[in-house]
Amino acid sequence: MTQIHPPSSVVRRRRAPETTSGNPMTEQAGSATVAPVTDSEIFAGHEGGKLSVAATRPIADQRDLSIAYTPGVAKVSRAIAEDAVQAKRYTWADRLVAVVSDGTAVLGLGDIGASASLPVMEGKSVLFKTFGGLDSIPLVLDTTDVDEIVQTLVRLRPSFGAVNLEDVSAPRCFELEDKLKEALDCPVMHDDQHGTAIVTLAALRGANLVLDRDIAGERVVISGAGAAGVACARILIAAGAGDVTVLDSRGIVHVGREGLNPVKQQLAEITNRAGLTGGIAEAMRGADVFLGLSSSTVDPELLATMAAGPIVFALSNPDPEIHPDAAARYAAIVATGRSDFPNQINNVLAFPGVFRGALDAGARAITENMKLAAADAIVAVASDDLGPDRIVPSPLDPRVAPEVAAAVAKAAEADGVTG
Amino acid sequence: MTQIHPPSSVVRRRRAPETTSGNPMTEQAGSATVAPVTDSEIFAGHEGGKLSVAATRPIADQRDLSIAYTPGVAKVSRAIAEDAVQAKRYTWADRLVAVVSDGTAVLGLGDIGASASLPVMEGKSVLFKTFGGLDSIPLVLDTTDVDEIVQTLVRLRPSFGAVNLEDVSAPRCFELEDKLKEALDCPVMHDDQHGTAIVTLAALRGANLVLDRDIAGERVVISGAGAAGVACARILIAAGAGDVTVLDSRGIVHVGREGLNPVKQQLAEITNRAGLTGGIAEAMRGADVFLGLSSSTVDPELLATMAAGPIVFALSNPDPEIHPDAAARYAAIVATGRSDFPNQINNVLAFPGVFRGALDAGARAITENMKLAAADAIVAVASDDLGPDRIVPSPLDPRVAPEVAAAVAKAAEADGVTG
Repeated sequence: MTQIHPPSSVVRRRRAPETTSGNPMTEQAGSATVAPVTDSEIFAGHEGGKLSVAATRPIADQRDLSIAYTPGVAKVSRAIAEDAVQAKRYTWADRLVAVVSDGTAVLGLGDIGASASLPVMEGKSVLFKTFGGLDSIPLVLDTTDVDEIVQTLVRLRPSFGAVNLEDVSAPRCFELEDKLKEALDCPVMHDDQHGTAIVTLAALRGANLVLDRDIAGERVVISGAGAAGVACARILIAAGAGDVTVLDSRGIVHVGREGLNPVKQQLAEITNRAGLTGGIAEAMRGADVFLGLSSSTVDPELLATMAAGPIVFALSNPDPEIHPDAAARYAAIVATGRSDFPNQINNVLAFPGVFRGALDAGARAITENMKLAAADAIVAVASDDLGPDRIVPSPLDPRVAPEVAAAVAKAAEADGVTG
Repeated sequence: MTQIHPPSSVVRRRRAPETTSGNPMTEQAGSATVAPVTDSEIFAGHEGGKLSVAATRPIADQRDLSIAYTPGVAKVSRAIAEDAVQAKRYTWADRLVAVVSDGTAVLGLGDIGASASLPVMEGKSVLFKTFGGLDSIPLVLDTTDVDEIVQTLVRLRPSFGAVNLEDVSAPRCFELEDKLKEALDCPVMHDDQHGTAIVTLAALRGANLVLDRDIAGERVVISGAGAAGVACARILIAAGAGDVTVLDSRGIVHVGREGLNPVKQQLAEITNRAGLTGGIAEAMRGADVFLGLSSSTVDPELLATMAAGPIVFALSNPDPEIHPDAAARYAAIVATGRSDFPNQINNVLAFPGVFRGALDAGARAITENMKLAAADAIVAVASDDLGPDRIVPSPLDPRVAPEVAAAVAKAAEADGVTG
């Protein structure tokens, strides 16, 4: 017999961590030491899901009911039918982000399907709320066909105000984002591309401020030509990087290489002005910045072949391409994607503020300038306290999202994509 | 310049009612007198939308972040990838109702479109939460093609656990519900049909208890052959009504009538055993129960032609087919859809508990027996306090949804549609 809970009971109850009582957190700011999170803690933290929908105004009596629902709601619906723009004011759609995935590239787990991707999307919604004050709903799709995904979101368009694409495999993710931007008159951003790119650019700007260097004089090696690698290459070039060399599993991407897909062909045309060919060794020689965005490993000895005092961002999770301690023997500044080393490069520094700013401004799109402005805003928050172990703010810094939102909204207006 | 709110600010603020300060609520149980709700109160009650998404567990530090999101969430996603049933436990989908509309039959407003229907769907979500403790998300669709709506929801299937269809025009709503039930392995219910039918049956059972009558001896006239009329006819027949006569805008539905659509053809075959033809006058003569589910008006004099002491449910909103005071001159019991008269027949008595029970039981469908059980449960809650002005519980009675949920879950198990 199924147990029936009365509706007054709390459906999703916070379970007390089972294995860590008496084991207080030992996290410190900056170089953090966090007691390992146990599996039982993790699963307890996801029991029943991580989201809940609440009414913004309680229904306590008949009067509340007749305002929120019939007969009162009819007046609001009629007002929107007569003037579509009223939907922005009297529904939640204009502030709602659809967190969309087809489950084809979930974290480091690959194509595990829509249902298995849902815990990640719920987590993303938690972060949108916590850091951006934005409501969002996960929409995970049981199709991997790009046109079907676009069609589905076009049909649902009146339900939301923006689309955060997540964990979609490359190169499909590029086509999907392009087609969605074409089909929808609202902000669309594939976070694995642009969130990573924004925060990486911010981190490089922070590192250059610490080292008193200029991006225009730097050659950057990017290991990985997936969603993040391609977007990072593009934003670094847009931000004025001296040169960018991209590597995929077959080596350096260059115009003379056979069999490049359209995305890599276009990448070859805007990168690698030095005309390098070969592999990681050829790419690293004399380079100023290494950016790891693949799950490969890099021999620390290769860092010795870079220009003096290189900047090394080893962003693979959970295993960085180079262990930070090993990298530190050669590098002037090291960053990773992990919270237990200094300089964590975490997308949460970007996406909540980017979407918040775009929606606040009523933007119809997210432009390149809005992304560059987001990166600048992230650096600005850290600027009063920069150092080799602090090139970006903490992911938990509450100042970041509002500053990013304000900068993004301003850039949206400057670009004329609002209203 | 757009005003930027920091994320810590509350996006949707409860506005104080503007025009009713110093004007306290005067609602009373049963025969209620409620001070009229003003337009400014209504619009203020919908400002910014009526829903919000919350995290069930706060993100206060790096440790929370690494549980709810990376790297911890990867273990949960992997567990679901390895055993799909784990999604029921570790995501919110299994408790999430998609409130779906194409905006083609919104309240009494007709085909006003998806965006204008959204305030109603948000209101529905508020009621799901308030009365059923269930999370739900409005999905309003910018297509009215039945197959496209089905296809869209099939693609989104991993995102939710049940579908509440709402405000879809007849006869499309019948085809849409049938196709969705066929395509989705989860509870699907068109509330305008079955919510109304369940509560109407409960009210008729309540009235019969008060009057010591038996449904088997009653002939019911239903004015209206739309979503609610058809579903009420079906459930009353399933519940053993003596006979049911249905009228549409062209008069009595009978097997000899030309040009019936397939739904009305099927209706003709199961109703009107007396073989009546003609219009409302012919239908009403000698009938025991009148059920108004159209927006037409009915001459009170016609009630004099019914059997002695008829039961009259005039459910059109905001204007009942017959004013309750006029109906009371002939009728033994009168009910309406309005909160300002006794015996309000309101779907909120049914749908929160029906979905809650179906989801609690892990039901793959909502069966006829589950609907009948829901009606019985609603009557049972009112049974200790029945009277001519109290044939159903108040829509705000907190006992109803848990009782309905328990009865529905039990019926689901008896019908073998769980697990």
